[in-house]
Amino acid sequence: MKAKIHVTLKNGVLDPQGKAIEHALGTLGFDGVDAARQGKYIELDLTETDKAKAQAAVEEMCKKLLANTVIENYSIELE
Amino acid sequence: MKAKIHVTLKNGVLDPQGKAIEHALGTLGFDGVDAARQGKYIELDLTETDKAKAQAAVEEMCKKLLANTVIENYSIELE
Repeated sequence: MKAKIHVTLKNGVLDPQGKAIEHALGTLGFDGVDAARQGKYIELDLTETDKAKAQAAVEEMCKKLLANTVIENYSIELE
Repeated sequence: MKAKIHVTLKNGVLDPQGKAIEHALGTLGFDGVDAARQGKYIELDLTETDKAKAQAAVEEMCKKLLANTVIENYSIELE
């Protein structure tokens, strides 16, 4: 089973990488960009085949390692 | 219009961040992880309302700034 995880900064948390992208795009002449935010995208290959168990395990991984839940949100897709 | 961009390393390109995640998950006792890959996730707010034009502009942004197409793939979703 494959897990696709998105880790994004919570609203209101300063996002210097996003700001840098925004600024660089402006410098390159791309004018139509109002805002940019950057997050992380993680793909895991899991041996677990039960969806509910896999979901629980990946949630645990996100809380313990992959996301800093003070400032970041995470979302999980299993397939 | 919002663009969601995934930038991932091409197959065969060494992914030290992914390896670090894999190893750290193992250390924390999560055994069922065969492989981990890490990429970037970028959200852009665009003023453009025409989907075809937005797609073309974002492709251009990916090629010029957001992805290193020698070692990275990108995918774009517009909504």
